[in-house]
Amino acid sequence: MNVFITGVYTTQFGELWDRSPRALVREAVEGALQDAGCSIEDIDALYVGNMLSGMLGAQENLGAFYAEELGIHVPAFKIEGACASGGLAVHNGVLSILSGQYKRVLVVGVEKMTDHAPSHVASALMGAGSESERLAGLTFPGLYALMATYYMKQHKLTEEMLASVAVKNHYHGSLNDKAHFKKPVTIKQVLHSAPIADPLKLLDCSPISDGAAAVVLSSSSAKTSVEVMASAVATGSLGLHDRQTLTSIPASCEASAKAYKQANCTSSDIDVAEVHDCFSIAEIMALEDMGFYPAGTAGRGIAGGEVTLGSSKNLVVNTSGGLKACGHPVGATGVKQVAEIALQLRGAGGRRQVKDAQVGLTHNVGGSGAVAVVHILKK
Amino acid sequence: MNVFITGVYTTQFGELWDRSPRALVREAVEGALQDAGCSIEDIDALYVGNMLSGMLGAQENLGAFYAEELGIHVPAFKIEGACASGGLAVHNGVLSILSGQYKRVLVVGVEKMTDHAPSHVASALMGAGSESERLAGLTFPGLYALMATYYMKQHKLTEEMLASVAVKNHYHGSLNDKAHFKKPVTIKQVLHSAPIADPLKLLDCSPISDGAAAVVLSSSSAKTSVEVMASAVATGSLGLHDRQTLTSIPASCEASAKAYKQANCTSSDIDVAEVHDCFSIAEIMALEDMGFYPAGTAGRGIAGGEVTLGSSKNLVVNTSGGLKACGHPVGATGVKQVAEIALQLRGAGGRRQVKDAQVGLTHNVGGSGAVAVVHILKK
Repeated sequence: MNVFITGVYTTQFGELWDRSPRALVREAVEGALQDAGCSIEDIDALYVGNMLSGMLGAQENLGAFYAEELGIHVPAFKIEGACASGGLAVHNGVLSILSGQYKRVLVVGVEKMTDHAPSHVASALMGAGSESERLAGLTFPGLYALMATYYMKQHKLTEEMLASVAVKNHYHGSLNDKAHFKKPVTIKQVLHSAPIADPLKLLDCSPISDGAAAVVLSSSSAKTSVEVMASAVATGSLGLHDRQTLTSIPASCEASAKAYKQANCTSSDIDVAEVHDCFSIAEIMALEDMGFYPAGTAGRGIAGGEVTLGSSKNLVVNTSGGLKACGHPVGATGVKQVAEIALQLRGAGGRRQVKDAQVGLTHNVGGSGAVAVVHILKK
Repeated sequence: MNVFITGVYTTQFGELWDRSPRALVREAVEGALQDAGCSIEDIDALYVGNMLSGMLGAQENLGAFYAEELGIHVPAFKIEGACASGGLAVHNGVLSILSGQYKRVLVVGVEKMTDHAPSHVASALMGAGSESERLAGLTFPGLYALMATYYMKQHKLTEEMLASVAVKNHYHGSLNDKAHFKKPVTIKQVLHSAPIADPLKLLDCSPISDGAAAVVLSSSSAKTSVEVMASAVATGSLGLHDRQTLTSIPASCEASAKAYKQANCTSSDIDVAEVHDCFSIAEIMALEDMGFYPAGTAGRGIAGGEVTLGSSKNLVVNTSGGLKACGHPVGATGVKQVAEIALQLRGAGGRRQVKDAQVGLTHNVGGSGAVAVVHILKK
């Protein structure tokens, strides 16, 4: 593709009551520019990934808003696609470079969610969902709980295996200073955490977080840059009732298939992946949908420690802690995933570095699977 | 650039209380596909231009939402940039084709505004504006009234000249069946219409409208297609207080300069233009900012009938009726402008056809000038 990631930065994720969205974006952008060794004047265009600025913040026109905040009057765009807003912003940034019109593009994802009552946030998030599910009173934990229930019955997945996703990701999060939760948890703690939507407990669910992440995309490589080998998007039905299956997300299957084709590789080439574990069941389905495990087997593999740091499978999943432990400021998540994989491929993963990672993948989902974005990056 | 517009369609604009956003989008898309002589299965990606679906409709994830509504599971994106959302969606659609990843792209702009109390809509629209102006109680009529006041003083523009913009655009709208207002008005009627924000009267202001428009972009030309010669974006400050001037919109100057360079032409090559006349003063500034008139002279030219259909200047402006008479469903406006110019260049303008139009321009603005998009199209 000849698009390179030359700089990345992720802010602290968490309940950042003393930080404004402006401050988060400034920190993420300054960090990414410094990492790329360039200045804000070198940037040709700005893509902002964000979902909730209108509904929660009464602010739109975010492209121009943040261009002004950053002191640059370049073409600027807000890309919205629910929890995949960040990944879709990266995708459009990549396309804009491939178009030849822009040479160096800044992508920033940002979300400020914890300033509002959780019920208000949960209601706003359902703005990503299907009308019928929303009117039926469903929320995202409820939707993923339906998928989990069906999956557990079909594939004999146990609650312990489900819990092992959270245990792994909290362990990884404990190695990431930027993570919302840096505390390891045990299977027992997950199983005994508050029930949210049966069979999902509190510790099966990603949190509501604040945060921002930024990446610098460039048409030319630099010393520490990684290459974008694939950037692929697919959409599926908004509602579960319109799907042939509840144990798989068709958009993830299609986006990953397109990405492997673009990168001319298979799932076996991937050394490290950030996947969309908004709920523990989501990581299990993601690993199967993208070909890392045959259907019905990822839960057992995760529980067996196969994709934990230092694993046996030559694949490590969600080194950042994933949405579960690193946190899930929705517009920032897809950008953070790309930033994390870039760090891993550069060998800059610190305590959570995957040994000799050469090829990495990111997987970002919007809604309960209405849209999926997959990126493949190479050292 | 080698991007072609192969099909266009605009729905009725107006107070469409019996039409849902879904129905408007379906009509626009079906019309554009029929015009392009292709089917929905030929489409590789969908760009949706929209501003207010979150704030007014509690619905986001609009890319996937409308992809599902249209029965296609292709990559889909919502592009938001206030009243320039439609133009920015076209721009990103153009870039996506230039990238080589997509060959045929559907761009649809949509807004449903009249189901809400006008005060609620006015407040939501200020989500495009600067925080300080919003907190000061300013609305968009107020912001443009400030510009008009300053401009009138500086350039000795009379209220009659200002009113002539509305008179011209209502005349053009009277020739457009899709227009929100199809009734010609007189200078006297404009001057005696209700004061909104001095010196702007009701008939100096574009209305709150519902509507949708769609265009099919393609990497290859077809029988009736027109070519995209330029697609350029620029941003400026959100607030008026941060500008060097109140009689010009810097983003319009910059976007048009880039567009002329891309298309290797000048303003004198343009035969027909759709410009962002959200308020009468805005059209006057737009024509000067884009080089059609020297500073301070456009009002006199418009009042003299120079850019009215059948004019002396070899340029006709806002044949659709503009935002003023055709209406301003914000996300749809920028797409409708491109659709109108495509019709003109194909000689399909009907009663409002500009004779022998060869090259056309569209100019779409977000906020009070925070972002501007200019497209140049050629027969």
